[in-house]
Amino acid sequence: MRYELYYWPSIQGRGEFIRLALEEAGADYVDVARRAGGVPALLKVLNDPKTKTPAFAPPILKAGKVTLAQTANILQFLGARLGLAPASEAGRLFVHQLQLTVSDFVDEIHDSHHPIASSLYYEDQKKESIRRAPHLTRERLPKFFNYFESVLKRNGKYLAGSKISYADLSVFQVIDGLRYAFPKAMKKLEPKYPLIVSLHDRVAARPNIAAYLASKRRIAFNQMGVFRRYPELDRG
Amino acid sequence: MRYELYYWPSIQGRGEFIRLALEEAGADYVDVARRAGGVPALLKVLNDPKTKTPAFAPPILKAGKVTLAQTANILQFLGARLGLAPASEAGRLFVHQLQLTVSDFVDEIHDSHHPIASSLYYEDQKKESIRRAPHLTRERLPKFFNYFESVLKRNGKYLAGSKISYADLSVFQVIDGLRYAFPKAMKKLEPKYPLIVSLHDRVAARPNIAAYLASKRRIAFNQMGVFRRYPELDRG
Repeated sequence: MRYELYYWPSIQGRGEFIRLALEEAGADYVDVARRAGGVPALLKVLNDPKTKTPAFAPPILKAGKVTLAQTANILQFLGARLGLAPASEAGRLFVHQLQLTVSDFVDEIHDSHHPIASSLYYEDQKKESIRRAPHLTRERLPKFFNYFESVLKRNGKYLAGSKISYADLSVFQVIDGLRYAFPKAMKKLEPKYPLIVSLHDRVAARPNIAAYLASKRRIAFNQMGVFRRYPELDRG
Repeated sequence: MRYELYYWPSIQGRGEFIRLALEEAGADYVDVARRAGGVPALLKVLNDPKTKTPAFAPPILKAGKVTLAQTANILQFLGARLGLAPASEAGRLFVHQLQLTVSDFVDEIHDSHHPIASSLYYEDQKKESIRRAPHLTRERLPKFFNYFESVLKRNGKYLAGSKISYADLSVFQVIDGLRYAFPKAMKKLEPKYPLIVSLHDRVAARPNIAAYLASKRRIAFNQMGVFRRYPELDRG
């Protein structure tokens, strides 16, 4: 099965969680908007007037006859097919629950530089961002980190037990992004959360992920994605 | 099967999406924190040190041996059991995609009165809320409404076709909440979106939902939930 991923070609964004799952599994996939099709191919699928399952926004995945959207929904679909989710129903529900918690976390991280409107530039909501960001770094990061740390403490090597799941890849990505966006805050916080830091490092070292991160397929973090480095927002 | 819902007893909040599904299906359930157990019973489950599937936040559902969290995850689980989701995998994926889009919408609505931090009172972020709210009512409401309207236009009576799903109940709840929180904006917008307004009205008239809405089990909208009425944020 060749999977087609439709996502913005210049950012990691929410599509990166899906790229990581496809890469870890060595799946056959095309990142359509980064190939010949470009953004027009993405917009064509996004605005297809004939589909019965329209998407509100990218990422969108095509898998044979199925077209689906919403990051966590796509990951749940892929997780079952790519061996990145437990076999039991209870296990799958828990991994999806973890992923939805990552989604909430990512939304809060995004809003630290866009507290007023996604339609405005950062510069036009900088003042409010400077007020919001310390609540993110001093209250919300510890709260989410505590949660994922406690899950690892209970369950062992990976969040859902002995086997890696898409939720582990997603927590890796969040930590990686936060290191880029908030290096000062992360330097202070990381020593308190050894289990999630170890999870990050173990995911980064997995052969397929390591090869992906070193390749040109991995888009560098930049000032257009979810994770952005604005020193005025990172006061530790 | 008796379901146990653990959610804050004084607000509709995110738990209301689950209450609506249980009520529509006539399921046997206990809203634990509203009964004898109260909030301590909720906190006990939330902070259970032994569970392998801890929750980041309520709502939490217990169904026999399964304990799960995250609104959309719970709805997906219940949808399959309560006849509130299509039988086909593609159908279920689409209903879940719709629900995750509702989740995103609800987050944006919440942040219109909490743009800086959920740990601060509204009064302490009122200035920023006054700046943010018009982006919600003038940009985001039309964008989300257009989306759901177009889904109904394609698929017919309900969002996923001829049969009601939990996503239809959720869209009802969002419209109901927005009518409470932003009556001026909604009065302006509703004539442009006849299909979602009709969906709202048809859901409200379903016997089980009508009985629920008229009962004491339905908590009134108030200034502690997701949907809050602050006239200064509703300038149409």
